[in-house]
Amino acid sequence: MLYEINEKAIRLENQGKKIIRLNLGDPDLATPNEIIDAAYAAMKAGKTKYSSSYGENNLREKIAELHGVKTENVVITPGSKWGIFATMYIMMKTGGNVIIPTPYWTAYDLIAKSLGVQTKLLRTEMEDGWKADLDKLEAMIDKHTRMIIINNPNNPTSKVMDAETLDGMVEIANRKGVTILSDEVYGTISFVKAKSILEDNSSHKHILSNSFSKTFTMTGWRIGYIIANRELVDNITKFNQITINNIPVFIQEAALRGLEMQKQLATKIEEEYRERAEMASKTLKKAGFSFTKPEAPFYVFPKYPGLNSEKFTLDLLDKGVAVAPGTAFGDYPEHFRISLTAPRNEIKVALDKICEASG
Amino acid sequence: MLYEINEKAIRLENQGKKIIRLNLGDPDLATPNEIIDAAYAAMKAGKTKYSSSYGENNLREKIAELHGVKTENVVITPGSKWGIFATMYIMMKTGGNVIIPTPYWTAYDLIAKSLGVQTKLLRTEMEDGWKADLDKLEAMIDKHTRMIIINNPNNPTSKVMDAETLDGMVEIANRKGVTILSDEVYGTISFVKAKSILEDNSSHKHILSNSFSKTFTMTGWRIGYIIANRELVDNITKFNQITINNIPVFIQEAALRGLEMQKQLATKIEEEYRERAEMASKTLKKAGFSFTKPEAPFYVFPKYPGLNSEKFTLDLLDKGVAVAPGTAFGDYPEHFRISLTAPRNEIKVALDKICEASG
Repeated sequence: MLYEINEKAIRLENQGKKIIRLNLGDPDLATPNEIIDAAYAAMKAGKTKYSSSYGENNLREKIAELHGVKTENVVITPGSKWGIFATMYIMMKTGGNVIIPTPYWTAYDLIAKSLGVQTKLLRTEMEDGWKADLDKLEAMIDKHTRMIIINNPNNPTSKVMDAETLDGMVEIANRKGVTILSDEVYGTISFVKAKSILEDNSSHKHILSNSFSKTFTMTGWRIGYIIANRELVDNITKFNQITINNIPVFIQEAALRGLEMQKQLATKIEEEYRERAEMASKTLKKAGFSFTKPEAPFYVFPKYPGLNSEKFTLDLLDKGVAVAPGTAFGDYPEHFRISLTAPRNEIKVALDKICEASG
Repeated sequence: MLYEINEKAIRLENQGKKIIRLNLGDPDLATPNEIIDAAYAAMKAGKTKYSSSYGENNLREKIAELHGVKTENVVITPGSKWGIFATMYIMMKTGGNVIIPTPYWTAYDLIAKSLGVQTKLLRTEMEDGWKADLDKLEAMIDKHTRMIIINNPNNPTSKVMDAETLDGMVEIANRKGVTILSDEVYGTISFVKAKSILEDNSSHKHILSNSFSKTFTMTGWRIGYIIANRELVDNITKFNQITINNIPVFIQEAALRGLEMQKQLATKIEEEYRERAEMASKTLKKAGFSFTKPEAPFYVFPKYPGLNSEKFTLDLLDKGVAVAPGTAFGDYPEHFRISLTAPRNEIKVALDKICEASG
């Protein structure tokens, strides 16, 4: 349904209709000029050749330094989605199942299905502040469970997992011999601190997936990374060798330039999205929607009792606003996801139409 | 062994040793400025967002026009290797085996092994002009055979498959219900015309894999394409959605600029490599090596009776020249591959050392 909405939005735009696009996590802000210029300089310097399937050493070193790990624990990937696919391809070859708390990012489930991996969904509810029930989690783990995939901060709820829940999850995973794959692509620009899976990884089993897309407005550049134990990093590299080969070096140079400017850029993005979230929250609350306060960019995941999210989303699209139905993120038919990735004046217009449509 | 040689070459270079690198198919020529500038202009124009997993329509249309197919038959991939991986991932899910003529590009076999697909090798010999024996091919096909992977022109032999053999292969494949995946990345810059698999694809079963790497000196940019029936194109696109998502649009714009200049660029590359091949052929012949005349860039695949190609390659590397052992391309221990991807003066020095080392 996520892709269907997007295709329909594109179709309507091609027909000349103005659509306010709040259906994807693709920021309206442009990639900073400094990053573009770093890419251009690298191209001109001849950094256009085959290169290492691990990624460039200077970039890996910088990432290792930022996360307090060794360079050998870092492998560069063409986007975080690739990192997740490659990790599951390698780790789930011999079968097994994965546990995914919902609401979730659709890609986890689609990847698992493509690989023939069984998924077990751990439902969380808005009414509980989207908190995972650790007893339920533990009961769900069986002898075939290899992995728990979490998204922290979460897409679509923009909720940060509290440290206590994360610690509890790590304790259970360690005791049961299960790997946590933590997708933290919204971590750096989060409004409240999100504890990283790397902060307590003495078992060296758990895995961080990250991306440059959200922090540096580089969605279309396709660059991210995995931090893991050396064995998995080596195996992902071997997998890269027979698939994508390498990420263009000039893109890696651009990402490195981004990291050097991280503080300044992340602060700017965080501030902009915090204000957008506050604006949206006020309007939605007034109109009777319930939701948890966004703790990170880019999303609000409101609920309206009795809503048919797919019908609502399609009707809204005809009125010129694209959002994503709750059913794209699990069994949440009364919810929908608003992505605040448009200029504020457009968001305002869209919010008014959303409030009208639900009334 | 191919990767081992490359790693050792890099290690020696890092120690300050000068190595003439004739071990990879990575041209020494730079990516043309026009292509780099097209990428930069696209970045500056904001073409840095998520985009279609099919690839951009303007690029797909241009490719379709060049090959005389419909736009819906084209999907853009991050390199031809990805196209081959994705095709095999999708088509071999339910099991089966693939037939690969040898000598072959190592990646085919590594991809098959990673996917748990059985490979059957159809050996060809230099003494037969590397011609595939069609009776042997037909006998090799069993009820589990799904695919034949050919590389035309061939890496490492630089031999173009004669039209009669290709026609015979297509006839057998059609009769037996087997798909031919034809990797034609050296086709556009070939010295003699290589017949494309698309010239006789009335069954719509056969698949072309191509790349911008070799024709436009864009190896590190990671862009190629698959031409196939619509069903496979749609399935590769769905697979792209859960893995690489999209190829950066600015890279697609750069590739499009390359295609617009194709005639001029391909002619220049073809001429340069033809002269290099002639120079190498003369020297190697004089020194007693036997080989078939290169009909395409970039390789010569000489044989020396009694040669231990791995030992020879390692010894040669200590003398400052990196080539690839014949065993990296199948069971060819008396052969080695020279990649003529260095300036002519360097190739000259390297050839002298090669002739010395074999004597």
